[in-house]
Amino acid sequence: MRTRNLKNKEEIIKNSNKFIDNPKDYKGRWKELFENDNPIYIEIGMGKGKFIREMAKKYPNINFIGIEKFDNILAKALKRMDENLDNLYITRLDAKDIEEVFKEEIERIYLNFSDPWPKVRHHKRRLTSKNLLKKYDSCFKGEKIINLRTDNSDLFAYSIETLSKEGYILTDVSLDLHKTKENIITTEYEDKFVSQNKPIYELKAIQKK
Amino acid sequence: MRTRNLKNKEEIIKNSNKFIDNPKDYKGRWKELFENDNPIYIEIGMGKGKFIREMAKKYPNINFIGIEKFDNILAKALKRMDENLDNLYITRLDAKDIEEVFKEEIERIYLNFSDPWPKVRHHKRRLTSKNLLKKYDSCFKGEKIINLRTDNSDLFAYSIETLSKEGYILTDVSLDLHKTKENIITTEYEDKFVSQNKPIYELKAIQKK
Repeated sequence: MRTRNLKNKEEIIKNSNKFIDNPKDYKGRWKELFENDNPIYIEIGMGKGKFIREMAKKYPNINFIGIEKFDNILAKALKRMDENLDNLYITRLDAKDIEEVFKEEIERIYLNFSDPWPKVRHHKRRLTSKNLLKKYDSCFKGEKIINLRTDNSDLFAYSIETLSKEGYILTDVSLDLHKTKENIITTEYEDKFVSQNKPIYELKAIQKK
Repeated sequence: MRTRNLKNKEEIIKNSNKFIDNPKDYKGRWKELFENDNPIYIEIGMGKGKFIREMAKKYPNINFIGIEKFDNILAKALKRMDENLDNLYITRLDAKDIEEVFKEEIERIYLNFSDPWPKVRHHKRRLTSKNLLKKYDSCFKGEKIINLRTDNSDLFAYSIETLSKEGYILTDVSLDLHKTKENIITTEYEDKFVSQNKPIYELKAIQKK
């Protein structure tokens, strides 16, 4: 996501009580942070955080962790955070390092409007590349679930192929989400897109243990 | 496909040397009809037959069988047939009876612009319904390959789900085929659609033996 630079981003990040600065320290014991055994769902590349914030409000019995690699975006998300939400934290992480941060403890990954990396030589950076899908494996607790939403038809087609090849079953597929479903929790980016009447693609990929 | 009624359809069908009136008689021995061991590809619901006719011309070392259930459409396809093409025959068959006609002898199924059957209670009639996919199983010789092409986003989304659930790996997925590929052999229906700049969806589903 390209955004304006926030001048006081370091300060926002440092002062937020919802930001986890040392995610590797929680590997295998994130539930201690939440102080309960509720399922943990993560969003990789949460942007300004509207989706995960609203999800956390709507589903108080699920724990959410928003992941983002850029400080500028982290600061924007943290500025908008509800500090009273006990079931949501934000952390800084590059997806390629995800195995160092989670071990058999997450139950779902949300990938919303991830960078499409259009050039073929960059496809391996896509969050649904074979390489990254393999890294998610050890993070999942049991059954693996990935929810993907995008406006990018190439990324969607690519993801159908990689997920399918890695053994995921694809379900809840929509090629025009907002025409077929109502009351959807959206991202900021998505709202703009929907207002332009462009189709949003979605799927849920499941792999039994 | 809705088409005008052909008055002399019975006569056209009866007089064509490319029409197989008794497909069940060939079960397990279609290669005897072609007099060779080349791979056999079928198209279920071939419409007026442009796709399979052009495929047969382009790939002389593959045997093609076009399948259609309505006499009116069969007659239209037969009228357009090249009687000199040794690697193409046409037959009358309802997909639900396909197990009575093929046994471990086909290598690929083409489903082009199949009826989308939009009403939920009719979904079981879709050519990619779970029920029909199971019937195709015994028709395949070894590895199963289904090539699907459609303009209907609901049918495409549905097919991704059913194929995936039945154990197919999805590959060569495109959400706008004619933007990404050139020199495509098309159907009559497809040509109209492409001229209106509407997206064509395509995928290839593979299941190893």
